[in-house]
Amino acid sequence: MYGAGKTPEQLVTILRTLHERHPDRAVLATRLSEEALATVPEALPEAVVDRVARAVTLGPLPAARGTVAILSAGTSDAPVAAEAALTIRVHGAGVDRIDDVGVAGLHRLLGVRDRLASADCLVVVAGMEGALPSVVGGLSGVPLVAVPTSVGYGASFGGVAALLGMLNSCAPGVTVVNIDNGYGAGVFAARVARNAAPRPDAS
Amino acid sequence: MYGAGKTPEQLVTILRTLHERHPDRAVLATRLSEEALATVPEALPEAVVDRVARAVTLGPLPAARGTVAILSAGTSDAPVAAEAALTIRVHGAGVDRIDDVGVAGLHRLLGVRDRLASADCLVVVAGMEGALPSVVGGLSGVPLVAVPTSVGYGASFGGVAALLGMLNSCAPGVTVVNIDNGYGAGVFAARVARNAAPRPDAS
Amino acid sequence: MYGAGKTPEQLVTILRTLHERHPDRAVLATRLSEEALATVPEALPEAVVDRVARAVTLGPLPAARGTVAILSAGTSDAPVAAEAALTIRVHGAGVDRIDDVGVAGLHRLLGVRDRLASADCLVVVAGMEGALPSVVGGLSGVPLVAVPTSVGYGASFGGVAALLGMLNSCAPGVTVVNIDNGYGAGVFAARVARNAAPRPDAS
Amino acid sequence: MYGAGKTPEQLVTILRTLHERHPDRAVLATRLSEEALATVPEALPEAVVDRVARAVTLGPLPAARGTVAILSAGTSDAPVAAEAALTIRVHGAGVDRIDDVGVAGLHRLLGVRDRLASADCLVVVAGMEGALPSVVGGLSGVPLVAVPTSVGYGASFGGVAALLGMLNSCAPGVTVVNIDNGYGAGVFAARVARNAAPRPDAS
Amino acid sequence: MYGAGKTPEQLVTILRTLHERHPDRAVLATRLSEEALATVPEALPEAVVDRVARAVTLGPLPAARGTVAILSAGTSDAPVAAEAALTIRVHGAGVDRIDDVGVAGLHRLLGVRDRLASADCLVVVAGMEGALPSVVGGLSGVPLVAVPTSVGYGASFGGVAALLGMLNSCAPGVTVVNIDNGYGAGVFAARVARNAAPRPDAS
Amino acid sequence: MYGAGKTPEQLVTILRTLHERHPDRAVLATRLSEEALATVPEALPEAVVDRVARAVTLGPLPAARGTVAILSAGTSDAPVAAEAALTIRVHGAGVDRIDDVGVAGLHRLLGVRDRLASADCLVVVAGMEGALPSVVGGLSGVPLVAVPTSVGYGASFGGVAALLGMLNSCAPGVTVVNIDNGYGAGVFAARVARNAAPRPDAS
Amino acid sequence: MYGAGKTPEQLVTILRTLHERHPDRAVLATRLSEEALATVPEALPEAVVDRVARAVTLGPLPAARGTVAILSAGTSDAPVAAEAALTIRVHGAGVDRIDDVGVAGLHRLLGVRDRLASADCLVVVAGMEGALPSVVGGLSGVPLVAVPTSVGYGASFGGVAALLGMLNSCAPGVTVVNIDNGYGAGVFAARVARNAAPRPDAS
Amino acid sequence: MYGAGKTPEQLVTILRTLHERHPDRAVLATRLSEEALATVPEALPEAVVDRVARAVTLGPLPAARGTVAILSAGTSDAPVAAEAALTIRVHGAGVDRIDDVGVAGLHRLLGVRDRLASADCLVVVAGMEGALPSVVGGLSGVPLVAVPTSVGYGASFGGVAALLGMLNSCAPGVTVVNIDNGYGAGVFAARVARNAAPRPDAS
Repeated sequence: MYGAGKTPEQLVTILRTLHERHPDRAVLATRLSEEALATVPEALPEAVVDRVARAVTLGPLPAARGTVAILSAGTSDAPVAAEAALTIRVHGAGVDRIDDVGVAGLHRLLGVRDRLASADCLVVVAGMEGALPSVVGGLSGVPLVAVPTSVGYGASFGGVAALLGMLNSCAPGVTVVNIDNGYGAGVFAARVARNAAPRPDAS
Repeated sequence: MYGAGKTPEQLVTILRTLHERHPDRAVLATRLSEEALATVPEALPEAVVDRVARAVTLGPLPAARGTVAILSAGTSDAPVAAEAALTIRVHGAGVDRIDDVGVAGLHRLLGVRDRLASADCLVVVAGMEGALPSVVGGLSGVPLVAVPTSVGYGASFGGVAALLGMLNSCAPGVTVVNIDNGYGAGVFAARVARNAAPRPDAS
Repeated sequence: MYGAGKTPEQLVTILRTLHERHPDRAVLATRLSEEALATVPEALPEAVVDRVARAVTLGPLPAARGTVAILSAGTSDAPVAAEAALTIRVHGAGVDRIDDVGVAGLHRLLGVRDRLASADCLVVVAGMEGALPSVVGGLSGVPLVAVPTSVGYGASFGGVAALLGMLNSCAPGVTVVNIDNGYGAGVFAARVARNAAPRPDAS
Repeated sequence: MYGAGKTPEQLVTILRTLHERHPDRAVLATRLSEEALATVPEALPEAVVDRVARAVTLGPLPAARGTVAILSAGTSDAPVAAEAALTIRVHGAGVDRIDDVGVAGLHRLLGVRDRLASADCLVVVAGMEGALPSVVGGLSGVPLVAVPTSVGYGASFGGVAALLGMLNSCAPGVTVVNIDNGYGAGVFAARVARNAAPRPDAS
Repeated sequence: MYGAGKTPEQLVTILRTLHERHPDRAVLATRLSEEALATVPEALPEAVVDRVARAVTLGPLPAARGTVAILSAGTSDAPVAAEAALTIRVHGAGVDRIDDVGVAGLHRLLGVRDRLASADCLVVVAGMEGALPSVVGGLSGVPLVAVPTSVGYGASFGGVAALLGMLNSCAPGVTVVNIDNGYGAGVFAARVARNAAPRPDAS
Repeated sequence: MYGAGKTPEQLVTILRTLHERHPDRAVLATRLSEEALATVPEALPEAVVDRVARAVTLGPLPAARGTVAILSAGTSDAPVAAEAALTIRVHGAGVDRIDDVGVAGLHRLLGVRDRLASADCLVVVAGMEGALPSVVGGLSGVPLVAVPTSVGYGASFGGVAALLGMLNSCAPGVTVVNIDNGYGAGVFAARVARNAAPRPDAS
Repeated sequence: MYGAGKTPEQLVTILRTLHERHPDRAVLATRLSEEALATVPEALPEAVVDRVARAVTLGPLPAARGTVAILSAGTSDAPVAAEAALTIRVHGAGVDRIDDVGVAGLHRLLGVRDRLASADCLVVVAGMEGALPSVVGGLSGVPLVAVPTSVGYGASFGGVAALLGMLNSCAPGVTVVNIDNGYGAGVFAARVARNAAPRPDAS
Repeated sequence: MYGAGKTPEQLVTILRTLHERHPDRAVLATRLSEEALATVPEALPEAVVDRVARAVTLGPLPAARGTVAILSAGTSDAPVAAEAALTIRVHGAGVDRIDDVGVAGLHRLLGVRDRLASADCLVVVAGMEGALPSVVGGLSGVPLVAVPTSVGYGASFGGVAALLGMLNSCAPGVTVVNIDNGYGAGVFAARVARNAAPRPDAS
C-alpha cells in the first residue's frame, strides 16, 4: 500500500483489514509520514517498523526464494534502497545489500563482483548523475533494474538527471523505474529472482 | 552492434570480423540505414535481413530457452517490436509476438491472457500515451519491460509522453527502457526468460 | 468562483453578494483553504460545505437535465472528481459517480459499461500515467472529457505525465482540461449533457 | 484512418477494404503525403480528395445532424480547420466555417456572434499564443473544443505555447486536444453536436 | 532596490543611506516580506507603504511627464500591476490604472479604448493564458509592454504559459518582461512615456 | 506581411494588392524563401530586395522621424538585425546600425556610447548566451528592446538560452521579443522612436 | 563533506573522526542547516564557522600555493562565492575576492583587470542571466570556471537561465559547474592554481 | 574560427587574411561542412585538413608545453575528441589521446591510470549517459573538463542527458562545457596545461 497522503487512522484501518483477510502473509505500507511512523505501531503493536524505509509491515515475511542484490551509491540513497529491500522480502525473495559503492570509488565496487554474479537480479540505486547502473551493467550479465533517486541539487532537477542517465545507459540490458520508486523495483526484482530460482519443492 | 551512423563498409567489416571470431553464434547489427539494408547482404550473402526490424544477423541463432511475449499497441510500433524480437532470439530466448492489442480495443487484449500467463517475461511496446503496460501489468504478474516508441505527434514529443506514462504506471512491477530501445528491452528480457526456464541439461 | 488565494472574509462577502443578486440559483466557491472551509459556514450557516471537493455552495441546486458519468482512477483523485461533480450539479446536470476504476483492475471498469453508455457525457479523472481515458474511450462513444490530476511523484511532474498521456490518447474523441481542473471539466460536461437531454418542457 | 507513414499502396488497400465492408458510409484517411494525395485518386477514382485537409474520403457522407462552428485564427491554420471540418462531416454533423477571426482583429469576431450562438458545438483552431478560445469562450456558452496548431516559430515550440494557452484559458468550459489534432476535435464535436440536435425521426 | 531576501534592518539601512544621498527624489524598495512591510515604517516613519505592491518609497515622488496606462486581467494580478504603477511614478511618469479587463469579458475592454489611445505607453498584466496583450495590441498602436504573472495552476507552470503566450503574440509590437516583473516593465514604460511627452520647459 | 510558408505567387499577389491599395507607402514581406527572393523581383521589378533580411519592400519608404540604434553581437545575427532595420524604416523611423559589438570584446562597445545616448530607442540582437542587452542596459538609459536569436548549438536550444538570459537581465528596463523576431522588435522600436522625436510640423 | 541532510550529531561525529585521522589538515563541511551552524561549534569548540558560506572547518588550513580570483555579480551571490573561497583555501590555494562586479556596472569590473591578470585561475559567480563570465572571459585569458547561482525569479528557473547562459558563453575557454556548486568550482580551481604556481621547494 | 554557416569562399578569405597577419602561428577553422572540407584545401594548398575533427589549420603548430589527456567513451565521440585535440595543439599544449574507454568496459580504463596521472589536464568526452567523467574523476586528481556529446537517441535529447550527468557528477572538481564543444574544452585545457608546465626557458 502506498501510504503517502493517508492519515495514521486510515493506515491502521487498511493494514488491519488486509491482515485479517490474509493473516498468513505480510502486508506492506510505504512512504509513511513521521506521524504515521510514530503512531501506527501504537495501534498495531505487532507491526514492524522500518524507519529507514519509512515503511511498516504486518504479518509474517514469506520464505525467500532467489536473491536480489541491492547496490546503492551513497548514504543519501539509503531510504530508497531500504524500501526496495523490504518490498523484495515481502514479495518472497532474499536480499543482499551492498551500500556505498558509488562510481567515484571504484575499488569498493570491484571488490563485490562475486556477490553480483551470484545474485538472480540486481537493483541499483543512485542519485545525482546516476552512473552506477552503467558501471555495474558492464561488470555483470545479471538482469539489472536501475532506480534513480531525487538525491542532488540544482541541475539534478529532483532526480531527472539520474533518470535520464539510466535511460541512456551504454550498458545493454538496463531497465529503469520512476524516481525514488524502490517499491516498484522491488516488486519487479522479486518476481525475476523467484522465477530464476529453482522451486524448493521442485528439487 | 548499434548500426546507426556506420557506413555499409564498416558494417560489413565488423560483422565479418565478429562472425569469424565466433562462427557458432549469431552477430546482430541494428538500426541499419536503407542503404545498408540493401548492400550488406550483397557483401555477406549468408547474412539474414529483417527489414521490419531494420537489422541483420550473421551466424546461427541459438536454441531458445524460456519465452518472451512481445505485445505491441499499433502497426507503427512494429519496427521496435521486431528489433526486440530479433534481439531476444539472438540472445537465446524464444518469442511469442502479440501485435495490435492497443488499449482502445480491450477485447483483443483480453483474448490473449493465457499467452501472457505462460510467458517468462513480457515486453510491451507502445507509443502515443503509452498506456498498454499499465493495462497488461494489471492482467498479469509476469515481469514486464515497457518500451516507449516515438510514434505520435505534437505533444507526444518524440516518445516522451509514452516514456512518462510508462514510468508512472499504476501497475506495480513495470520497468522501462529508452524510447524505441527494442534492443535493450530484448537483451534484458532474454536474460530474465532464460534464467526462469529450467536448463535443458538440468532436467 | 475560484477561491484559492482569497481570505475567508473575501469569500463570505462575494458569496453573500452573488447570492443576494441571484437568490434562486446556487453560487459555487472552489479551492477553499482549510481555514475557509472551517469559517465560511460560521458566517453563512445556510452554505453547504463539500469537504472532499474543498468547495462551498450557497443557494438551491437547479433541477438536473442530462447525466454526466464521472469516473476516477484512484482514491487520491477524489477531490478533483468531487469538484467536477459539484460543478456539474450547480450547472444543472445530473451526476453518476464511478470511483476506483483504475486501469490496473479492468474487471471493475468492464462491469460499469452500461452506466457509461447511458450517460450524456463522461468526465474521466486520473493521475499518474493518465491511461484511464484511453481505455474508457475504447469502451464508449459518449463524449469524453479527461481531467489529469497532480497525483503521483517523481517523473509525474505534478500531473504533466497524465496530461501528456491524455492529450496523446489513442482513443478518438478525447478532450482534455488543465491539471486538477475539475471545475472546468464540470462546466463543459454540464453544457454538453444538458444540450443532449430533451428539455422537460419540450416533450 | 491516420495516414501518416503509410504508403499509397497501403492506403489504397485499406480504403478499398473498409469501403467494401461498409459501402454505405464514408471512410476517411487523414495526414496524407503529397505523393499519396496524387496517387490514391488514380487508384480509387471515386475517392474525394480534400487538398487543404490533406485527406481523402471514400463513400457517401452521412446526412448532417446538428452543427459545429469551426473558427480559425489565421490562414496558416487552414489545414487543421479543414481536417476538423471533414471529420465532422464524415461523423454525421454539419459544419459552419468561420475563418480568419484572430484576436488582433476583434471586429470580425464580434460580427459573427450570432453564428456562434446557433451552433451546437464550437471548434476553435489557433496557433502562436492560442488566445482565440479564451475570447470566444467569453462570448458564448456553447461547448468549445480548442485545437492548438503548430503555427509559429521560436518560443512557440511547435505549438506548445498555444497548447498551454488553451489549457490555462480563463474562460470556463474550454477543453483541448493535441497540437494539430483536427481529427480528434472533429470526432468529439460531431458527437456533441449530434446528441444536441433532435433526431429527425424523433420529431 | 529589490528587497526580496533582505532583512528589515538591511532595508532600513539602505533606504536611509540612499535617501540621505538623494533627499530630493524617491527611493523604492520592492518585493518586501510581510515582516519588512510591518517594521520598516516603524524605523522610517516618513516612508510610504504600498501594501498591494508590497513596496515602500522614501522621499518625494517626481512630477509626472507622460502617461502609462496599466491594464490588468484579474484581481490576482493586482500586486504586479501595483508594483508597475509605483515604479512608473517613482521614475517620473503618470499612471492610468485599468483593472479587471480580462479577455473573457470583452465589453469592459472595449469600453476603455479612448484611454488606451491617449496613453504614451501601455503595460498589460495578465496570468493564466496571457491573452490580454494580443487583444489590446489589436485595439491600439501605442507601444505595449506585456507582463506575465505567476497567477494560475497546473500547466501554467508558475507563469510560463502566460510568458510564452505573450512572446508569441499575433499582435505586432508587443514586448515582454520576466514573470511578475512589474518593476522592469515600469522602468521601461516610464522611459518611453517621458520621452514621448513634450518637456514642460520645452513648450 | 509574414512571408514564411507562402508561395512566390501568393506573395506577388498580396504585395501587388496591398501596394495598389496604398501606393504612397511601403509594403513589407519578411521571411522569404530562397525561391521567393529570386522570383518575386521578376514579377515585381519595382520591388526592392534585402537579401540579408530575406525581405522585400514595395513602394516608397516614409521619411524617418526619430532614430533606433540596432546593436548586434556577431555576424550570424545579421539577418535578424537587418529584418529589424528594414521594419523600422518601413514604419517611419531612422536606423543607426552598430554591428559586431559582442560582450567578449568590450572595447568596441565602449567606443559607441555616444551613439547609444543619442538614439531614441535601442534594439539589441544577440544569440548564444544573450548577454549583450545587460551590458548595453548598464551603459545607457535609452529604452531597450532585446531580440534573442537562434544562433548557437547544443544547450542554446535554438535561442532559448539567449531568450532566458534576456528575460533575466540584471539591467532594469530591458524588454524582450520572441526568438529571431526582428520584425516585432522593429515595429515596437519605431513606435517608441517616432513618439520620442518632435514632429517636424510641430516645431 | 556535503552537509545538507545530515543531523548536527552526524556532522560532529564525521568531522571529529576525519579530524582525528588527519589532524594536520582541515576538514570541511558545507551546506549546513541553521541548526547545525549553531550547535556544531558547541560540540567542537575548535571548529571555525563561516556563516556566509554556511560551512565549518576543523583543523589548520594549508599554506596557499597559487591564487584564485573569485568574482561575484551581486550581493545575493555571496554564499556561493564564500563556499568557493573556503573550499579553495582548504584545498591549498590562495583567494582574491572581487565582489559586486555585475555587468550592468562595467566600470567596477574594468577597474580590476590587473587582479584578473595576476590570478592563476578565475571563479566567476553569477545568477539571473549569468552574463558575467562572458565579459570576464573577454577581458582575460586566465582559465575561468563559471558558477551559476539560483539567484533570480520567474524565468530564471532556479538558476537554469544562468547555467544555460554560461554554457553558451561566446568567450572561449569558459567551463561551468552545477548551480550553486561553489564547492566543486573551488576544488577544481584550487587544483589548477596550485599546479600553475611554482612549488616553493622547487625554487 | 567557428566555421559553421560560413561559405567555403568566406572561410578561405578569413583563413588567408588571418594567416597573412600572423604567419608564424596556426589559424584554426572548425565545424566545416563537407563542401568546405573538400574545397578549402584546393584554394589553400598549404592548409592541413583534419577530416575527423571537420577542421582545417593554416600555419605552423606551436611547440607543445604541458600535456592534456583526452579520453573518449565510444567511437561516435571521435569528432568531438578530435576537435578538442586539434584545438589544444593550436593553443600550444600537447595531447595524449585515450579512446574507447567507456564505463561499460572498466578494464581498459583501469589500464591507463598512469597516463591520467602524468597529464596536466584531462578532457573527457562522452555521450549517452555521460558517466565517464565521474569514473575518471574518481581515479585521478588532475583537473578534468567534461564534454558531453550529442551521441544517443530518444531520451538523450541531443546530448542533454550527458550534459546533466556531467553537471551532477559525484566526483569533485569536474567542470563542463556545452554539448559537442570540443573547441571550448580544448582552449581551456590548453591554458591549464601550459600554465602547469614549467616554461622551457625558465628551467
